[in-house]
Amino acid sequence: MQPLPGFRDFYPSDCTFRNFIFSRWREICRRFNFVEYDGPLLETIELYQKKSGDEILSQIYHFIDKGNRHVALRPEMTPTLARMVEAHFKEYKKPIKWFSIPQLFRYERAQKGRLREHYQLNCDIVGEADLEADIELINLAIDILLSFDLGKDDFVVRVSDRLFWTEFLKKKAIPRDDWYAFFQAIDKIEREPRVEIERRLGDLAKEVFAILESPPCWERFEILLEGLRHRGLADYVCIDLGIVRGLAYYTGIVYEIFDRAGEFRAIAGGGRYDDLLRQIGGEDIPATGFGMGDVVLGEIIRKKNVIQPSFPRLDVYVVFPEGKKNPQGLFLIEQLRRQGFSVDFSFCPSKLKKQLATAQSLNARFALIVSDKIEEGIVEIKNMDERTQLTLPVEQLAGWLKERS
Amino acid sequence: MQPLPGFRDFYPSDCTFRNFIFSRWREICRRFNFVEYDGPLLETIELYQKKSGDEILSQIYHFIDKGNRHVALRPEMTPTLARMVEAHFKEYKKPIKWFSIPQLFRYERAQKGRLREHYQLNCDIVGEADLEADIELINLAIDILLSFDLGKDDFVVRVSDRLFWTEFLKKKAIPRDDWYAFFQAIDKIEREPRVEIERRLGDLAKEVFAILESPPCWERFEILLEGLRHRGLADYVCIDLGIVRGLAYYTGIVYEIFDRAGEFRAIAGGGRYDDLLRQIGGEDIPATGFGMGDVVLGEIIRKKNVIQPSFPRLDVYVVFPEGKKNPQGLFLIEQLRRQGFSVDFSFCPSKLKKQLATAQSLNARFALIVSDKIEEGIVEIKNMDERTQLTLPVEQLAGWLKERS
Repeated sequence: MQPLPGFRDFYPSDCTFRNFIFSRWREICRRFNFVEYDGPLLETIELYQKKSGDEILSQIYHFIDKGNRHVALRPEMTPTLARMVEAHFKEYKKPIKWFSIPQLFRYERAQKGRLREHYQLNCDIVGEADLEADIELINLAIDILLSFDLGKDDFVVRVSDRLFWTEFLKKKAIPRDDWYAFFQAIDKIEREPRVEIERRLGDLAKEVFAILESPPCWERFEILLEGLRHRGLADYVCIDLGIVRGLAYYTGIVYEIFDRAGEFRAIAGGGRYDDLLRQIGGEDIPATGFGMGDVVLGEIIRKKNVIQPSFPRLDVYVVFPEGKKNPQGLFLIEQLRRQGFSVDFSFCPSKLKKQLATAQSLNARFALIVSDKIEEGIVEIKNMDERTQLTLPVEQLAGWLKERS
Repeated sequence: MQPLPGFRDFYPSDCTFRNFIFSRWREICRRFNFVEYDGPLLETIELYQKKSGDEILSQIYHFIDKGNRHVALRPEMTPTLARMVEAHFKEYKKPIKWFSIPQLFRYERAQKGRLREHYQLNCDIVGEADLEADIELINLAIDILLSFDLGKDDFVVRVSDRLFWTEFLKKKAIPRDDWYAFFQAIDKIEREPRVEIERRLGDLAKEVFAILESPPCWERFEILLEGLRHRGLADYVCIDLGIVRGLAYYTGIVYEIFDRAGEFRAIAGGGRYDDLLRQIGGEDIPATGFGMGDVVLGEIIRKKNVIQPSFPRLDVYVVFPEGKKNPQGLFLIEQLRRQGFSVDFSFCPSKLKKQLATAQSLNARFALIVSDKIEEGIVEIKNMDERTQLTLPVEQLAGWLKERS
């Protein structure tokens, strides 16, 4: 039997790798004073429809539950965040700096290597309209990638501003109803032939392409870049007005992070969404944030092959040379575990040599040989790396191990 | 807007509490040399039907996906474990000692306080038929509860053996088709009136009640209790033949852990299921394991009120006394974060007094005051607990902080 197409089994080595990504994410968020939250995996479909319209239904897992509710496996976290923040906004000190690592689900047509679930770090700042909040988030995203030993030659943050384009559209007197189609056209520039984009853009095409080739001065970019420069992050960003993000709800600075070689899909993406909380809950609260998935990031880390997360080493493998486990040895195992050491042993009697081989194959640091001598309070300990062995009184064992851990 | 009934929002303090439980679970599993795995949240319904029959459908979330597959939100982890182990059994050293912390889903009739999702630590040993594996798991479950500062007055492991009852049924020549009903009757002893149980048990009733009142000698209990006694765990267990576990697939030792006062539902439960892997994948592999949910455990910890998980403290809150942030200060923030300190600051200019108040309310250990003097390489640092303040050269700051962390 197989897992469903698009779903992953996490065998221990995969799970270690996943948890390694999670723990770096958590660590860097902690340094930026973001705190973790989480929400339900299942939400009512209305929560997503409010934000994305009915077209979302074609891309997600949704069904009618036994209570006749139309529900969906969460395809993204922002609507849940908006719902949660709205409900208790007054209780929290502003700005709110929250992160989460939800598993998200999309029912997309099966493509090779395309998954139907992934984990996504979500970092959001709610309650702060200033560009400083966007700078802080871009800074956070960069520091996260640096923590995986990726550098300025490995990735770049392509930054844009929806406000630039909405100013442009206003100046051109384009009716608001046509804005979404305009953004869709820009969003497709790298994926569709130029003639197709020109057709989509109509009369605006020539001017838009000129802007994309050489972006005009725009004060908000100056402020943003200066803030990043002060932090020593200028090498990690570039302005790219071709970035608009597919989602309809962005209202300001938007960005996507790509590997420099352009080999992978986006590593992360985000931006400001000052209207979303009002749409979902009614209150006018500015917000900005990004998402970073585990899949593309994992592919890049594996390709770079710099970091090799591994299982923590087993501290002690207990060997019973007489085969049968003596009670004092079992008691000692429990004592060592209570003191924080990882300890393993063979459940069934086996030969000394085989037990030592198991200690070796489990990558134990020490083999603790518990013979009948334990009745006199004596054990032997073997350093598996140095292949040295010495005799110790039982009462000195924990201290001896602690010194060496 | 609310979360769906039976689903939890994890606001930061709830999420901290949840993660605290997870991290203790992981830590004690590490000490016992269990490694973590995970599987898909969605599986084909067949995986659960194979194990539990069609009746499972009435208790779970299931639906037809867009690829016309009948799928379910996982109601338990053991079938996924069985599927995963079956597929790669030969590649792993036996016995396999694995744990996982899946979120699980049940569509049960809404009851006060009854959730439709919870997290459940699953610990399993696969490939070892000996009672030693069951002892190891009971030991692990006990050590986990001890790690939450619960003691022998707080909980008890009630241990039973399905083999005792199957021997009994064989001796009485009860046809195999009636065994499940027999176990169902025993399982309901504490929840139904005695007359009802007597009706269910029929001719066997009198003898069964006599056995429950004074359990006869049973060698496997002797072995099990001796193993636990050697480990110093005798005080945490009792024999209780009334425990059979609802699920059909248990084949040997079974147990449930309850609070001594009997105030809560079961904290954990498990047992041996030597036939399940054959049912799911065809291979005859012995297995035993337990599950421990986050909800009842969380209620008991909160009630005992001994452990108060809290957010990690903010190391440094940076204060810009002139209001406007100077570039050197911003650079310093980034440097401190790269060195592992958690650092926060106000996005928008505000008065010195307000900034210090924020440092206080964020429970920062230090306020770092970055004035124009930073151009001469000087900063001031204020210990927020001791209310002392001193001047430091910038290059000594990180070292100074490290000594105090």
